[in-house]
Amino acid sequence: MKTNLLSSMIPTVTPDISVGQDGALAFGGINTLQLIEKYGSPLFVMSEDRIRQNCRFHKQMLNKYFGGNSHVAFASKAMSCRQIYRILADEDMYADVVSPGELYTAVSAGFDASHLIFHGNNKTPDDIRFAIDRGLGLFAADNMYELDNISRIATERGIQQSVILRVTPGIDPHTHEKINTGKIDSKFGSPIGNGQAEDILRYALSLPGIDVAGLHYHIGSQITEAQPFCDALDNVLEFLRVMRERLGFTARIINIGGGFGIRYTEQTPLTPYDEIFSSLSDRLTAFCTAHDYAQPTIITEPGRSIVADAGITLYTVGAVKNIPGYKTYVSVDGGMTDNPRFALYSAPYLAVLANKADKPTELQCSIVGRCCESGDILIPEAALPKAEVGDIVAILNTGAYNYSMASNYNRIPRPPVIMVSGGKDYVAVRRESFEHLISLDN
Amino acid sequence: MKTNLLSSMIPTVTPDISVGQDGALAFGGINTLQLIEKYGSPLFVMSEDRIRQNCRFHKQMLNKYFGGNSHVAFASKAMSCRQIYRILADEDMYADVVSPGELYTAVSAGFDASHLIFHGNNKTPDDIRFAIDRGLGLFAADNMYELDNISRIATERGIQQSVILRVTPGIDPHTHEKINTGKIDSKFGSPIGNGQAEDILRYALSLPGIDVAGLHYHIGSQITEAQPFCDALDNVLEFLRVMRERLGFTARIINIGGGFGIRYTEQTPLTPYDEIFSSLSDRLTAFCTAHDYAQPTIITEPGRSIVADAGITLYTVGAVKNIPGYKTYVSVDGGMTDNPRFALYSAPYLAVLANKADKPTELQCSIVGRCCESGDILIPEAALPKAEVGDIVAILNTGAYNYSMASNYNRIPRPPVIMVSGGKDYVAVRRESFEHLISLDN
Repeated sequence: MKTNLLSSMIPTVTPDISVGQDGALAFGGINTLQLIEKYGSPLFVMSEDRIRQNCRFHKQMLNKYFGGNSHVAFASKAMSCRQIYRILADEDMYADVVSPGELYTAVSAGFDASHLIFHGNNKTPDDIRFAIDRGLGLFAADNMYELDNISRIATERGIQQSVILRVTPGIDPHTHEKINTGKIDSKFGSPIGNGQAEDILRYALSLPGIDVAGLHYHIGSQITEAQPFCDALDNVLEFLRVMRERLGFTARIINIGGGFGIRYTEQTPLTPYDEIFSSLSDRLTAFCTAHDYAQPTIITEPGRSIVADAGITLYTVGAVKNIPGYKTYVSVDGGMTDNPRFALYSAPYLAVLANKADKPTELQCSIVGRCCESGDILIPEAALPKAEVGDIVAILNTGAYNYSMASNYNRIPRPPVIMVSGGKDYVAVRRESFEHLISLDN
Repeated sequence: MKTNLLSSMIPTVTPDISVGQDGALAFGGINTLQLIEKYGSPLFVMSEDRIRQNCRFHKQMLNKYFGGNSHVAFASKAMSCRQIYRILADEDMYADVVSPGELYTAVSAGFDASHLIFHGNNKTPDDIRFAIDRGLGLFAADNMYELDNISRIATERGIQQSVILRVTPGIDPHTHEKINTGKIDSKFGSPIGNGQAEDILRYALSLPGIDVAGLHYHIGSQITEAQPFCDALDNVLEFLRVMRERLGFTARIINIGGGFGIRYTEQTPLTPYDEIFSSLSDRLTAFCTAHDYAQPTIITEPGRSIVADAGITLYTVGAVKNIPGYKTYVSVDGGMTDNPRFALYSAPYLAVLANKADKPTELQCSIVGRCCESGDILIPEAALPKAEVGDIVAILNTGAYNYSMASNYNRIPRPPVIMVSGGKDYVAVRRESFEHLISLDN
C-alpha cells in the first residue's frame, strides 16, 4: 500500500510542517516553494516561532519542577548565529558557548554576557581573557590549567570569577559512542569515581580570584530515557554530600547539561520530559531535605531540543539515477557540506518532496548530495513520491548541528538561513557568495 | 625501548620533515616553532616545493609511460585556494573542479579555464552556464540531464563543448566503503556492465553542441595496488572497442581519475607508480595496436598524492589529562573543525611534538581537539614524547582534505595556510577572524 508520510507520522516529528491545498509543503505556515523562488536553492529554513515554543517548554519544565530557581541555557553549538541570540534574549534564556567565536557572536548580537556559560575542554589563556573582559557569567572549568589561567586573569582584573566545575559522573547513557561524554573515560571534566573530581574541587577552592559556584556534568546526547539523568544526579549529589563533609563546599548551582533526545524519525521514542524532571526534582528535594542542603539553582543546557525540529533544509533535485538491481539515487544541490551528520554518525532523517507533499510515497531511494565523495549521503534509504529533476526535497529536523557544522568542502557556499515567524519570512544568515569563499585567500 | 619516530619512519612518510640542532621540527627547512611565533596557533603549513615536486613526479610518470600525449589534472577538492592554482599553472598542470566555487577560485587566480575539467554528479544549469561562459575545457558529464543542459547552453552560445563521459567500470578497489566509487552501485557515472554507459554515450553523440572527447572513470581513493587500475582500464578498453563497432565512436581522451594512495603512516605500503603506469601503458599500447585504435590522451587526476604530504598542521597543547587506568588525553587548540577525517573515516595520522622532535616517544595518548564533542579526536592512539601544556603538536600529511573540509563548528575560525618555499614562508590563506565568522549574519 502506498502511504502518505505527512498524514501519519510527520506531525509528531516536525510540528510546524503542514500541507497546503495545492499539495505544497508549508513550514511555519509559509509555502516552501515560494521560499525557494524568493531565496534560491538550497535553503535552511527555521521557525522562529518553534524556537520560542521550545525555549518556553524547557523553561516551563524547570519552573514546574524546580520553581523559579532555575535557568535554561541554550547550547550554542547546535546553532550559533546572531539572530538566534536575539531570540534567546527575548525569551529570557541563558546560553552556553564553547569558544570565543560563539561568545563573540552572542555578544555582538547584544546578548548579555553575564547570562553566558563558557564550556570546553581546552580554553586558551586568550579565550579566558576575552571572556572575562566581556563580563562572562560562568566558566564551566574543565581542568587545572584552565583554573590557573582563570585565577591569574581574574586576579589581574581584581574580580572574583564564578566557575562551575565539569565532573564526569561515570554514567553511560547507552547512546552513540561519539556523543557519549558522561562515562569516566572522557576528554571532558574530572571523574567523580576515581577521586579526580575531588582533587580539582579542592584545587579550585584554593585559588584566588575564583568563586566555585557549583558543578556541571553532561552525560551524552540524544537521550530519551529518564534513568541515565537520574543515575547521574544521584552520583553528583552523593559527591556533593561528601564534599561538604570533607571540604566544607556547598554548591549553589548544579548544571545538568543537555542531551534531551528529539524525534528525527518516528522510530525515536518521545523524550519523557515530565518523568525526567519530576524524578530529578524528587531526588534533589529528598537530598536537600535529608542533608539540610540549600536547594541549588538547576541549569539545563538543551541545544538540539530547542532548534532541531525548528529547522528544515530545502534542496532541488538535479538528477535521478536508477541503477537497475541496485538503487535509485536522487541527487540534490547540497549534501554533506550543509549536513555532515549522516557521514559522521549515520544519523537518520526524514525527507518529503515539498512540491508533492500530498502524494503517496512509492520510490525507495538514496538521497545524495552534490559533493564529489561517495560518502556524501543525506538519507541512504528514503521513501519519496516519484521524484523528478526540479522537485524540491525537504529534509526535516535539520535545525541543529547542520548550519553549525557546515563546511565549504568542494568550495560549496553555505546556504542562507531563512527564518519564518508569524506568517512572514526574513534572512537570518545570508547566502555565502563565491567572493566570500575566496575572501581569505591571498 | 623508547623509540624516536623521526629517526626511523617519518622521512618515508613526510619527506620535507627534518629536525634542527635544537631539537625543533622543521618543515621545508623552516623551524616550525618560529612559524607558530610568527603566525600564531593553530596553523596549516604547506610546502610549495613539495607540491611542485609531486606535480613533476606525476607528470614524469605520464611522460615516461605515455609520452607527451598526457595531462595531469590536480583534483581541487583535496585543497582549493588561489595560491594552489598559481603553483599548478606555473607547473603547467591541469586541474579538475567539482563546483562553480572551485572553478571561480581557479579562474580568479588566473588559472586557464581551458585546462579545467568540471566533475560532479549534480551540476546545475547555473553551474554549467557559469563554466561555459568562462571557457571551461572539459565537462566530465555524469548523467543525461546534465548533457541536455550542456547541449542547450552550448547551442545557445554557438559552440561545441567538449565533454568526457563518466562511466563506472565495476571495479571494487578494496578500499574504504565511503571512498569507493568505481563499483557499479554508485551515485557517479553510468555503469559499463549493465548497458547504461552505452545508453548515455549514444545519447551524448546525438546531441547538438556537444563534442564527446572520451571517457572518465575513477575507481576510488587511497589505492596502493596496480591491479584495480589495470582491471578498470581493461573494462573501459573493451567498452571502447565495442562502442567503436556499434556507434562508430573513437575516444580521444581516457581520464583514469586519481586515487593514488599516500603514506599516512608507515603501515601504508608505498604506491607502486612504475608498476601501475607501466602496466597501464602496456595494456593501452597492446589494445591500440591490436585494434588499430589511435592512442588516446591519458589524463590522471591526483589530488591527495599532490598535496597530502606537502602539508602539516601545528597545534598548541592546552591540557594534558590522565584518567588513570584509561587514557591520557592531550587536548590541542584545533580538532575536527580543521581535520574531520578521523571523525569521518577513522583516518590514521602521525603526530610529532615539534618542540621535542629529538626526544624518544614514551607517552601513549589520545590527541583530541577543542570541540565540544566526544568524537573530536585527531589521533586515538598516538605515541609522543612526554607532553606538557604549551608543547607544539605537528600532525603530518594533512595537506589534503583538511583545509578543504574545514568547518566553523563551535564557531572556531579556520587556521591560516602558511606556505614554505626555498627557506621562506608566506601566507597563502589568512587566518579567519571573528568578524569574518559573523560576516554573513544579519
